[in-house]
Order: sequence, then structure tokens, then C-alpha cells
Amino acid sequence: MPETITNVLDKVNSPEDLKKLEMGDLYKLSNEMRELIIKKVNTIGGHFGPNLGIVEATIALHYVFNSPVDKFVFDVSHQCYPHKILTGRKDGYTNPDNYFKYTGYTAPEETRHDLFKIGHTSTSVSLATGLAKGRDLLGGKENVVAVIGDGSLTGGEALEGLNNAATLNSNIIIIVNDNDMSIAENQGGICNLLTELRENNGVVKDNFFKALGFEYHYIADGHNIENLIETFSKVKDTDHPVLIHMHTIKGKGFEPAVVNKEPFHWILPGTLDRLNDAPAPQKESYESITKDYILNKAEAGEPIIAMSAATPGVFGWNKEFRDKLGLHYIDVGIAEQHAVGMASGIAKRGGKPVLAFMSSFVQRTYDQLSQDMALNNAPVTMLIFWGGISNADATHLCTFDIPLISNIPNIVYLAPTCKEEYVRMLDWSVNQTEHPVAIRVPYEITYSGENDTTDYSILNKYKTEEKGEKVAIVALGDFLGKGRDVKALLKEKTGINATLINPRFITGIDKDMLEGLKSNHSVVITLENGELDGGFGEKITRFYGDSSMKVLNFGSYKEFTDRTSMEELYNRYHLTNELIVQDIRSLL
Amino acid sequence: MPETITNVLDKVNSPEDLKKLEMGDLYKLSNEMRELIIKKVNTIGGHFGPNLGIVEATIALHYVFNSPVDKFVFDVSHQCYPHKILTGRKDGYTNPDNYFKYTGYTAPEETRHDLFKIGHTSTSVSLATGLAKGRDLLGGKENVVAVIGDGSLTGGEALEGLNNAATLNSNIIIIVNDNDMSIAENQGGICNLLTELRENNGVVKDNFFKALGFEYHYIADGHNIENLIETFSKVKDTDHPVLIHMHTIKGKGFEPAVVNKEPFHWILPGTLDRLNDAPAPQKESYESITKDYILNKAEAGEPIIAMSAATPGVFGWNKEFRDKLGLHYIDVGIAEQHAVGMASGIAKRGGKPVLAFMSSFVQRTYDQLSQDMALNNAPVTMLIFWGGISNADATHLCTFDIPLISNIPNIVYLAPTCKEEYVRMLDWSVNQTEHPVAIRVPYEITYSGENDTTDYSILNKYKTEEKGEKVAIVALGDFLGKGRDVKALLKEKTGINATLINPRFITGIDKDMLEGLKSNHSVVITLENGELDGGFGEKITRFYGDSSMKVLNFGSYKEFTDRTSMEELYNRYHLTNELIVQDIRSLL
Repeated sequence: MPETITNVLDKVNSPEDLKKLEMGDLYKLSNEMRELIIKKVNTIGGHFGPNLGIVEATIALHYVFNSPVDKFVFDVSHQCYPHKILTGRKDGYTNPDNYFKYTGYTAPEETRHDLFKIGHTSTSVSLATGLAKGRDLLGGKENVVAVIGDGSLTGGEALEGLNNAATLNSNIIIIVNDNDMSIAENQGGICNLLTELRENNGVVKDNFFKALGFEYHYIADGHNIENLIETFSKVKDTDHPVLIHMHTIKGKGFEPAVVNKEPFHWILPGTLDRLNDAPAPQKESYESITKDYILNKAEAGEPIIAMSAATPGVFGWNKEFRDKLGLHYIDVGIAEQHAVGMASGIAKRGGKPVLAFMSSFVQRTYDQLSQDMALNNAPVTMLIFWGGISNADATHLCTFDIPLISNIPNIVYLAPTCKEEYVRMLDWSVNQTEHPVAIRVPYEITYSGENDTTDYSILNKYKTEEKGEKVAIVALGDFLGKGRDVKALLKEKTGINATLINPRFITGIDKDMLEGLKSNHSVVITLENGELDGGFGEKITRFYGDSSMKVLNFGSYKEFTDRTSMEELYNRYHLTNELIVQDIRSLL
Repeated sequence: MPETITNVLDKVNSPEDLKKLEMGDLYKLSNEMRELIIKKVNTIGGHFGPNLGIVEATIALHYVFNSPVDKFVFDVSHQCYPHKILTGRKDGYTNPDNYFKYTGYTAPEETRHDLFKIGHTSTSVSLATGLAKGRDLLGGKENVVAVIGDGSLTGGEALEGLNNAATLNSNIIIIVNDNDMSIAENQGGICNLLTELRENNGVVKDNFFKALGFEYHYIADGHNIENLIETFSKVKDTDHPVLIHMHTIKGKGFEPAVVNKEPFHWILPGTLDRLNDAPAPQKESYESITKDYILNKAEAGEPIIAMSAATPGVFGWNKEFRDKLGLHYIDVGIAEQHAVGMASGIAKRGGKPVLAFMSSFVQRTYDQLSQDMALNNAPVTMLIFWGGISNADATHLCTFDIPLISNIPNIVYLAPTCKEEYVRMLDWSVNQTEHPVAIRVPYEITYSGENDTTDYSILNKYKTEEKGEKVAIVALGDFLGKGRDVKALLKEKTGINATLINPRFITGIDKDMLEGLKSNHSVVITLENGELDGGFGEKITRFYGDSSMKVLNFGSYKEFTDRTSMEELYNRYHLTNELIVQDIRSLL
């Protein structure tokens, strides 16, 4: 693709340049930026609606404030593309060759205009309060500005942050970018209040933000650059906490994204070219199986309830599914802690909560897993999606869920390897009342072709897939396939017929089976799709610590990787079949 | 001690009996209950102010509602003694022989009137919302009542819960027990709002709770049983979310606790008998060393800031210390997630945050440790107090901080073994700008007698305390003393002169040293004062997995223990010196 011609943007290489432009040029600039964003995101994928909605506001912010002296913190930072374009990184947008040059999130290694790597929501107010407090300790004078969406506002850290920011007694400016959407619909009392504020031009009887102690300003049209500049100028250099409530339109400038906001929050490459295509035929997947299971139970009148914390799309829980479920579905908004607490309450009252998380976001609750759920043995079913090694951005890694969940007492964390096991585990979990259960749902569906009749209430019983000798391969969850491949390659290279074990339980050790391996095995290897430190394999190694069994653990290292290719990661972690076999052979 | 005479309480064996009493008798009952609580808590220790403050309200709750059909959830449940007395457990209060019969927290195993084991704050609204949702799914009709203090209200889960509870569209009653205190002073915008509401009899311009969508009621005197009964009766069987804001006096009925609330939140046995004693002379402790260090830095004009999330007393950060620090101290209230986010912001702006947590409460933040702090390499100093095996209640165990913290990339978690190391580590951490650092502060101070000159910027370098052979003892942090004892006993029993290693770094492996041990050692043991699963020792074992080294890990199991004696735990975990030596000998 050729570079896009950008008449006004050509003149803007830093925020300083922006301040020299006339109003008409600022609007032209917003059109040029929008065009760049649409073209780039449709080419490589990325956050679409959030960035289109904040173009004018970002222009106004950089027009009024003096970054990098004044400090911006963009919550979740999936709306930072306009900011990147204006802060010396426009080449990543004008030139398709550079589309992958910058991350989709704020990144301090790219520029002094970014303070933090951010990709989880609801952190901006706390981070900004810290920047402001640090400034006060050091005698600085700059403005500190947090930009947070109405969706992110429902997360615990954001609410804790607002409570504290409101009493800071010095300069902090919180901009609530209210586009009336989380990823899906926004939820809760704050959402209703924002609606009331929008409908009444910012004037209501009980104002949540004023109640907390903020000076409150309302901007009815967050795409009117004059209004934005006027209000931002008014609060610049404030000596007390200010909150600006700004109404914007998610997806602004691309009509289909305005009309139908949820599917355009984040899009795959080429989405805009397929708008008129017939929907692809549904293939069976773990998502579709889960949906069917829950729907059937709900229709049968069972007290099942599907629960999501603002990311139903990750599990394929689209609007049709949610509408069908009615009272059997709840989205609590970005509020993972509440989700776990509420699920524990539902379970204790006899309901059947099925609470789904993306692996990276289950990190947003820990004490609730421990205290509300595990300590109380609340029979919650938790589904963990996308767990595993990936080439994701550093903020969205999914390798930490096993160390997080599996070292908490009482939780049964299961790792199905195929559809048959998954269905059996899900059904067992929903129908039992003894344990909190989590299931690590693999990304791609596979089939064993055999009906699973396992009684999962007998905990920590591993399955021997294939009996062999000398080497035992303990392959967890979606790595069972890799276990088979390693077994085959080992056979080919050495003639050894290895034992293959499918542990199925992440949270416990099958002592009898592991003990039994001692008689005719000298090497045990573990394969897990996640972090080694604190993970599954180390528990096996500890079991064999006092024996002569040699044990190797394969998985990812304790590190934040950042868009690192799978090939590089698999080589680094010795996770290719060849490297695994090589490591085994060094022990034989 | 003899049983206390309780004329009215004698007639009350269940909430049903309460409903038959006249108003005068209800007040007499409150006096009798208060007397029992004062006597018991002064005898065995426990939560004092919170329980004295809620006697009348608990009587009124049980008078109006029908527990266990109607459901109560007491937040943090450190105010549940009156509830226990009224729900069949008064023998634990009238008869000193039974003082240890019931836990200090709600406990479903004791009675159907308790739904959850609860000891961490800010969970009640979410749990109650779940009970209500479960009820609605199952077609129940009972009332669901959450009782939450103003201090607990600032925690993220509570705020997420309120946002969701407000839109439940069915019966839920939230009672905010506002005694104008957290454990120390309450903090933030909500606290200011509550003050304004109290000063204006519940009428203000911007009401936080009404803004969220709750029907709001104010009770000016939460010790007036008639008023309490009247308001509770009014909202009973509501079909929508209601919030009652009730003003009570923490410590009510015991004047010193009313005048000086913080030290009477939780008291040691015999505290009331020592009220007029001169304060005990201050002995040097890790707490006093930390305070002196921070004060000196602050007085020297450095941008250091001591940070607490509502529990300054745990670290000895008393009012005098806080006042001296002025701007160099901040208590963010019960808001651990915000504390970590804010500390990360302060550190990134050049400040020097020293953020202290009790081990059990660092669990209340995880994603912030990972995303706000670790991913951004924010040079925060975190002090973790009380980490280790104890006979604590199941809700307050301190054995999980190593698995929690040490499997997150980038964090340097240090385990000092003596004053000299602690001072050196603290100073290194505060002055460096590369790493987020956590320090596991031992409970009891010890001295090596040698100045520590280690450069802790060279990460993961273990210290050989004593060189020996055959057996190496890797003793982490406050277990170094146990390491010495085991070494001595092993020498006595077998003549073996074991190597003793002080790893100092929890978060990494000293590969060179461990490799070196292979030449003249056949057994390595690890000793850690915390959970084995996901902990420190497993990493050592993994290192030796491919070698012939035998490794044993000693620490606590993955379990919630509940007031289990240390003797029992040490036997169960093989942590007595004798059992450890026995286990070592079985491998020689």
C-alpha cells in the first residue's frame, strides 16, 4: 500500500506543532487521523471504535496541555492511537511498512509522552494519583491528566482510585470518556447515572462525582474541538481534583461501528472488507459447546447462570445468546472481583454459576478466589479461556493463570484435552456441590473419539493414555497433542516407547501413578502451556525430589514477552518437539 | 472465672426468643451482651470496638428479620459477636471455659445463621448480591441483608458490588454501619461524604448512594433500638435495592475505646487491666528500624513516602509517626489495589514509595502487582509483614505471599535473616530505580553481628553461611535459625557437617552456587516459612530435576488451617528439627 497523503498532519511532528494550527485545520487533522486509523486497523487488526471516538479529544488535549511535561495516562490505552500519531509516531500510521513498528498500547520505550505500559483497564486513576503525589513530593508543577472510559470506571481499582484522587488536595484532572459502552453494554448504577447526566446536559440531583468531592464539568459533544479546548483550558493548572465528563461516540466517523458498537470494539484484519459477506458457518468449538450446554440447562429450568465480567465476546457469548438466556445471564461489567464474590453467593444459595474469564483477566481477582470462593468451598464453575503461550502484547499474556489459581487451596483446576473430556468435566462441575472448579478451556477443539465416563469427583486421578517404559511424558491439557508428537519422535529417534500421561487435574498429584512409574521409568517430563514457576510441572518434580527419577519441566519462563513470535518463544523455552526429544536424550 | 449472670439473655436462645421481648428488655439485653463482650475480649483478645458498636443494631436486625430464612452477611465479620450471642452461641460468651469454642468470625460450620467464613473486608455486598441473585433464580422470597462498615466501603470489591447491587431489580438491603473509622482514620471522598451526611441528618446535595440508584435511609442514632426497628421494618421485603446508612459509635459503652478508637479496634488479652500502666519501653524491632529509616529520609528532604492501606498499626506506624511524616505518609484506606497503582505512579515520577502490607492482605492486590508495578518495573519498595506459618484463623493465614508475589516476572522478593541484612536491603531498595522490590520482614528481630555490605543489585546471589559437605540446607529468611538448628542436630546424629545457605533472594536461583553443590553434596533441603506449592523450594528442586541430587522441600501444605496449633502444624509439615533430620537421614 502507498503512504496516505496527509496535508495537515504533514506539518505535525510533535504536540508543539499542533498548537500553531487554526481551528479549521484541527478539524481537517481529525479527518486525516481518522482515515489513517481506519486503514491501518483494517489492515492489521486492532482496537477500532475506542480510537475513532477519541480523535478530537486527543487533539484538544495536546493543544491545551504540554506533554511530556504535563502527564497523560490513558486507561487501558486501547484508545491511544490518536495520541501516538500526535507524539512523533505518525510513521506507524502513514506508512503501511511501519504498521507493526509501535505497539497498540502506550509504551514508554517508544517515547517520553508515554509513562506506562498499560493494557488492563481501571488503572489510570491510581497511576495518575501516584504521578501527582510524586510531583507534590518533588515540588513539581505539571498537570496530571487521566483519561478513563465509562466501561473502565466500574473496576475496583478505578473506584478505589477515585475515592482517593478526590481528596488529593492538588492538581489532578480525570477525564471520563463516556461513550455509553464498555466492550459490550456498560453495567450498573454508575452507567445509569452517566445516562441521566447525558440526558440532562450534566445536571442531575445526585451527582456521583460531586459526591466524591470532584469539581465536575460536562462536555456534551466530545467531538467539538472548540468546546473541548475551552473546558480543558479552564481546568488546566487547577490546584484541586477536577473531573471532566465528556460524551463521545464510540466508532465516530465509521457508521457501521456507530450503529453496532460491540463487534467494532476490536476487529480482525479485513473486517471492513467483509461487512456485506454472509456470516461464516458456525463450526463446533469449545465456545459453541459451552453455549449449547448452558442454554439447554437454562431451558430445562435449572438455576444455571452464565456470568461475564465485560468480555462476553471472548467466549462467543453474543447478543443472541445473552438475550435467549434472559435472567440466566449476567454481565457485571469490568468488575472481576465482584464477579467471583457474586458467583460464590449464587452458588451458596443453590444456583449454578458458570463464570468465564480470559486467562489474562482472571489476574484481576485473587483474594476473592481465595476468600470468597475457595475458603468457602463455593461450588462455582470457572472457565478460563485462552490460557497459553502466545505472541501477544506484554499486557495481555495468558501464561500466568496456572500459578495464580492452582496454588490456592480447595480449588479443583481441570485441564481437558478434548471435547469429550471438556463436556464431562463441565457437566460434573455444574452438578456437584463440593468444590470450586476451574476449567482451562483449550483454544482449538480436538476429539478423542471416545466417550468420557470418568468420575471427576475422585480428585487427582491421572489418565494413562499409552503405557510404555523408560520415559514418561506428562502432557497437560492442550499440550497432550504435543505429548503424542514427542512420543512419536522419541520412538523414531531412540526406539523408546514412552508412556504418555494425561493428568487432567492441574491442582493435585496422582501419587499412586507417579509412584508406579518408578519401577520401569528413569525419566519423567512435564509439558504445560504456561509459566513453569509456580506451575504444574514443579509439583511433579517436587514429588520425585527424594528419588532417583530424572525430571524435566517444559513450559514458559517467568517473563513478560512482548509480541514475540511463537517460533522464537518455542525455541527459547525448548518447546519444539525436536528440542524436547534432544533434552530427553541427554538424560538417557 | 464464673459464668456471668444474664437475666434477659437467659431467655434468649435463638432470634425467635428475641421477638417476644419488650423494648425495655431489649435495652437490658444490649447491656448484658456488652458486658459479656468486654469481659471475653479482655480475657482472650479480639475485636473490641467494632463489636461494642453494633450491639443494638444486631438486636434490631434479629428482631425484624427472620434468620436463617432471611440472610445476613457481615462484612469482614469482625463485628459478629453480638450476632453469635443471639444465634445459639451465647455459651461461648457466658462461660469462660467456652471462650475458644467459636471463632471470632462468621462460620457456617457453627450454625445455619452464618453463610460464609469471612475475615477480609469489602466482600459482603458481592456475596449478598449473589445470594439475592441465587434466590431470584430459584424463586425464593427471603430478605438478603449485607452489613458493611464505612471503612470496608472503600475497597474495590465493595465498590464494584455497590455498582451492581444498585441495579439488581429485586430485594437487597445494604446497611452501612458508619462509625467514622476504618481500623485507623477512614480516608477519601466517600469518608468526607459520610461526614457531611452525618452532620446534615442524611440530607446532602449530592448523595453518593442515591447517585448509584439506591433507595437511601438514614439512622442518626444506631444505638436507638426503636429507630433501628422502625427503619428495618420499613425496608423489610423491599422489591428493590435499599441502602440504610446507620451512624454508630465504635467502642460504645466503654469510654476509653470511644475516646481513642484506633488502639481498641482489636486488643490483646488483659489490655483493659493495663490502661493506666506506663507504656512499655520500646525495644528495637523491625518495625522500629523501619520507622527510623523512613523518618530520617523524610527529614533529610528525600521524596520518600510511607504508604499503608488502612493497617498502619500492623507495622507500628502509630499516630505520632504518621504526624511526624506529614506529607511523607499516606493511608489510602482499605484499597490495596489503588495503593500498588499509586505507588507505581509515585515511583515513576521519582518518589520513593515504601508500601507496607500484612502478608494476608497483599492477596487483595494481584493484577496491580503484575501490570502497574512489575510490567512497568516501577521501583516500589513493598514490605510484607507477618509472612509465615501461624495458628491464625483460616481467614488470616500468612502462608501464601511467596507463591503470590514470586511467580510474577520482574519483582525482586528478598528474605532478610537479620537486622543487618534488612537494613542493607531496605536501603538498597529505596535508592535503586531498576526493580520493584518486596522484602519479607521477619516477625522477630535477630542479629548476625556482622555489617552487611552486600550489593543487592547483583540479583540472585545466595550466601553460604557455613561450608560443609554431603548435605546442603537452604534456609530462607526467618528459617535461617531453623537451618542452623537442623545443621547442629544433623551433626550430632550423624557427624555430617552440612552446608548452610542463606538464599536472601526468593525470586531467583543462584545457578552457579547450586551447580557447585553437586560436587560434594548428595542431598539438598529447602526450608521456607510458607506454602510449598508455587513457593521457593520447588524452584530449587526443578533446578536439580535432571541431576542425581536428592532434594526435599520443607514448608506448609496447600491448605486453609483454622486456629490449628503450631505444634500440630509443625508435626504435620515435618518442620520440627527432629523430623527434618529424620527425613534427611532416610536419604543418606
